[in-house]
Amino acid sequence: MAKEKKQPRPKAETPKGFRDYFGTEVTERAEMLRKIAGVYHLYGFEALESSAVETVEALGKFLPDVDRPNEGVFAWQEDEGDWLALRYDLTAPLARVYAQHRNDLPTPYRRYAMGPVWRNEKPGPGRFRQFYQCDADTVGAPSVAADAEICAMLADTLEQVGIPRGDYIVRVNNRKVLNGVLEVMGLDEGAQRDAVLRTIDKFDKVGESGVRELLGKGRLDASGAYIDGVGLSDDQAGPVLAFLTSKAETAARTLDNLRAAVGESAIGLEGVQELETIADLLEAQGYGPDRIVIDPSVVRGLGYYTGPVFEAELTFEILDEKGRKRQFGSVAGGGRYDDLVKRFTGQAVPATGVSIGVDRLLAALREKGRIGGTVEGPVVVTVMDRDRMADYQHMVGELRRAGIRAEVYLGNPKNFGNQMKYADRRGAPIAVIEGGDEKERGVIQIKDLILGAQMAENATLEEWKERPSQFEVPRAQLVEKVRKILDGQGQ
Amino acid sequence: MAKEKKQPRPKAETPKGFRDYFGTEVTERAEMLRKIAGVYHLYGFEALESSAVETVEALGKFLPDVDRPNEGVFAWQEDEGDWLALRYDLTAPLARVYAQHRNDLPTPYRRYAMGPVWRNEKPGPGRFRQFYQCDADTVGAPSVAADAEICAMLADTLEQVGIPRGDYIVRVNNRKVLNGVLEVMGLDEGAQRDAVLRTIDKFDKVGESGVRELLGKGRLDASGAYIDGVGLSDDQAGPVLAFLTSKAETAARTLDNLRAAVGESAIGLEGVQELETIADLLEAQGYGPDRIVIDPSVVRGLGYYTGPVFEAELTFEILDEKGRKRQFGSVAGGGRYDDLVKRFTGQAVPATGVSIGVDRLLAALREKGRIGGTVEGPVVVTVMDRDRMADYQHMVGELRRAGIRAEVYLGNPKNFGNQMKYADRRGAPIAVIEGGDEKERGVIQIKDLILGAQMAENATLEEWKERPSQFEVPRAQLVEKVRKILDGQGQ
Repeated sequence: MAKEKKQPRPKAETPKGFRDYFGTEVTERAEMLRKIAGVYHLYGFEALESSAVETVEALGKFLPDVDRPNEGVFAWQEDEGDWLALRYDLTAPLARVYAQHRNDLPTPYRRYAMGPVWRNEKPGPGRFRQFYQCDADTVGAPSVAADAEICAMLADTLEQVGIPRGDYIVRVNNRKVLNGVLEVMGLDEGAQRDAVLRTIDKFDKVGESGVRELLGKGRLDASGAYIDGVGLSDDQAGPVLAFLTSKAETAARTLDNLRAAVGESAIGLEGVQELETIADLLEAQGYGPDRIVIDPSVVRGLGYYTGPVFEAELTFEILDEKGRKRQFGSVAGGGRYDDLVKRFTGQAVPATGVSIGVDRLLAALREKGRIGGTVEGPVVVTVMDRDRMADYQHMVGELRRAGIRAEVYLGNPKNFGNQMKYADRRGAPIAVIEGGDEKERGVIQIKDLILGAQMAENATLEEWKERPSQFEVPRAQLVEKVRKILDGQGQ
Repeated sequence: MAKEKKQPRPKAETPKGFRDYFGTEVTERAEMLRKIAGVYHLYGFEALESSAVETVEALGKFLPDVDRPNEGVFAWQEDEGDWLALRYDLTAPLARVYAQHRNDLPTPYRRYAMGPVWRNEKPGPGRFRQFYQCDADTVGAPSVAADAEICAMLADTLEQVGIPRGDYIVRVNNRKVLNGVLEVMGLDEGAQRDAVLRTIDKFDKVGESGVRELLGKGRLDASGAYIDGVGLSDDQAGPVLAFLTSKAETAARTLDNLRAAVGESAIGLEGVQELETIADLLEAQGYGPDRIVIDPSVVRGLGYYTGPVFEAELTFEILDEKGRKRQFGSVAGGGRYDDLVKRFTGQAVPATGVSIGVDRLLAALREKGRIGGTVEGPVVVTVMDRDRMADYQHMVGELRRAGIRAEVYLGNPKNFGNQMKYADRRGAPIAVIEGGDEKERGVIQIKDLILGAQMAENATLEEWKERPSQFEVPRAQLVEKVRKILDGQGQ
C-alpha cells in the first residue's frame, strides 16, 4: 500500500444526464408497473425481459420518437470486434427477440416489457439519458382487432392505475387514411410529400391556420423567424386540412368526412374501413367515444407507423410552470408497424403496440393525489441505554410481526436530540422511548410525531395540555397503541 | 429506397453471454423481489435505484466476489472525454450515492437495491454477463446491532419468499477473529499472510485436511497436479485450523474455542466479543441456532470484509447434474466493510450489508415447488366466424372483468387446427368455441384442455365417454363454467 501513489479522490457524481431514484420514487413506480402488468397479463400478454445490451447490428436504427430524431446510443466495441450498445427503446429488441425465437413463440405473440432504456443525447431539464418505458405489442396479427384490443387495454390500464374515466381519452387515427389523402393530392412520394408530412407533424403546435400557412407560402413563427412554406395552393392543401379537421360529433360523421377526404384512393378507403372496424369492435365491447374516439388530428408518430395510430391523453387541467392552466396531455402512444422483423428475416410481420410514458403517468398520478401523501416512514424505537439493545430490538420485532414498519436507531445513541432529528428525517410517524425509569415501571413513552408537528405549527397552550403529543402507556400495549395512532384514531 | 445498397441482413442474436427472459421467468422473479422488498421495507430500509451507468472514476474497482476476481466492466468513452461504465454490482454505486447525497440522507442510512448488473467476463454455462442482484445495506452504523439486524432480516426474507424454517441456515463469522489468529501466528502482514488467506478461501472445497496440507508442504489436487503449500509447520498452522473448526454444539462453546484460538490478540478478542453480542441480540429476538448460527467455517468473502461476515445456505438436498445428492448451498452472503465511502470523502464510514443471489434463490424456490406449476396460460376464445369478432371480444371482456385471464385468437382463423395448436402453445387451460350453429342455439362449446391432455395420455374409452373434455353450455354460463374448471371442480 505504502508504495502506491496517492490518487486524487474520485468525484461522487452520476454521469451527466443520469440520476438516482430514492424511496417512494422507486416503490411508487414499481407499484404502478405492477398494476399495469396485471392488466396486460389479464389480456393474455406475456412478460419479456430482453437483455439491456444488444449488438449494434441487431439494434439498427428506427426510433419512433419524432421529437428526438437525432439521439444516439451508448455503444462500445468488444475485444473480439463486435460493437455492442445499450437498447434505446423496447421495440428494436422485440424485433430481434421475435426474429430469433419465432419458432418457439406462439403466433400471434402478445408480449409486454418494462424497463430502462438509454439515449446518448444532450441532457436537458427533466430529460434524462436513462428512463423507463413500458410497452405492449402484438406481433403476427394482421387484423385490426389487434389494434382495437390494444386501445381497450390502454383504457383499462389507465383506469386500473388510478386515472378515472372522463379524465382520459384514447384517440385513434390511421396512417393509411393520410396516405390516401396524399395520393389524391398526387403526392405519393418525393420531396414535396415529405415536406407535407413534416408540416402535419406540427399540427399539434401550430393548429389549423398554422398548417394552412405552412402548406402554402409560409409563416412567421413565435420567435419572429419566417418559416418557408411547402408552396401548395389553397385548393391543393384542402384535402390535408380536411383530413386533420375531420373529427365530428359522432364516429359515423368523422368517418364520412374521412371518406370524402380520401376520394377514390384505395389505400385511403382501406384506412377508413379499418377505423370503422375498430370503432365498431370497441363500441360492441362498451368502449364508447367517452373513452376511445376516432380523431384524425392525432399526428404524433404518423410518419413512423403504417396503419392505425393511437394516443392516450389525460384531459384534466394542471397549472404549467408559468401558472397557466393547460391539459395534462399525452401519456401513451403507439400504432401499427408492419415491417418489424423484415430487417432480420426478409419477411414482413405485422405488429401493433403501445408505449406508456412511465414518468409522465407517474407525474399524472401524483397530480391527481393517487400516489404520495401517505405515511411511509417507520416507527423509530430510540435507544436510551445502549446495553439494552436487545430490548429495543424486541420492540421492533413485535411491531414488524404486527405488520408495522419499524426500526431501532442504530447511530450513536449518546445524544437524544440526534435520535429525534433522525426520526424527523426518516419521516417517522411515531418515536418510542424506554429509559431506565420507564423500564423499571414497565411502561414506555410514545411520541406522536405527526400530531407533534401539527401542534408545533398552530396549537394553543390549552390544546397542548389537552392533547399531549407524548404519553405513557404500559409496555405490553406497544403494538396496540402504535396501531391506533397509525390508523388515525389518536391515543 | 431503390438507390440504397443492399445491406446484408443483421443476425437476430443477443450478444454472447446475454440472454432474454420470457413469461414466468420474468414474473416469478418480479414477485420474489416484491416479497423481499416487503420485508426490507418493514425493517425500515428505503429503496434506491441508482443509474445503471457510472463514471469509471466513481465506480472504482473493489469487487467482493472472490470467485471472479478478474472480471472487467463494460466501459466506453464519452465524446467529451469521460469514461462511463455499466455498474458491476450494487455496492460501488451505493458508495457513490452515499458520498454524493450524504447531507440529505439520514444517518444511519438503510437502503435496499435490486436490479441488473453487468460483468464483462468470459461467459460460461449458466454464467451470464447481465444478471440480477438484490442488496440491503446499512451505512453509518458502527454497532454490530446493525449486523445482527441484517442477519435477522435475511432469515425473515428467506421464510417470506417460501423457504421454510429448517431448510436454511444463516452462518456468521468475523474477519477480526481471523485477524487475531493471524496476529498470534505472527502473520499480521506480508506474502505469507496473503498465502494463508488464499488457502483459507479453499476451505469450502478441500476441507480441514486439505487446508492442513496446503498450509504445510502442499497437496495433490483432484486433477493430479501438485499444489505447493505455504510451508508452515503443523504447530504454526494450528491456530488457523483451530479457528476454522471451532464450531461447537452451542454458541457459548464456539465462542470459547475462538477465544482460545485468538489468545491475547486485542483485535481477535474484539471479534469474538462482536460475535457474542450478535448471538445474544439474535437469541433475545428469538432467532435461535436453528436459523442463525456462529460458524467460523464460513470463509467466503472473509478477505473482503472487515468485521462480521454472513452467509445463508439452503440445507435441503438436491440432485446435481450427475444424479448425486448434495445440499443446495449458498443463496446470500454479506458482511461489514468499513471503508465504503473513504475513496470519495477521505472519511471512513462503517457499513454492513447482504446480497441475495436472485437466480440461485429462484432456482431454490423452483426446486421446492414454491413457484412454477400453476396454470398461467389464458383461456383462448377461438374465432369460428371472422365477421363476429365483436362477439368473441365480448366473451373475453366478460372473462377479464371476472378476473379470468383470456384472449381472442388473433391469427388467421381459417384453419381451426392452427387455433388449437396456438391454444396448446399458450398453455391455455380452456378453449371456448362458438360457431354459427352454437350462436343460433345460444350455446358455446367449452374444451377443457388440461383434462383433454390427461385423457389423451391414459384414459380408457369408457372414461372418454363418461367425462368428455368438451361439452356444451348455455352462452350465459360462460364465466361460471370456466371458473369452475379453473378452480379444479370439473364441469
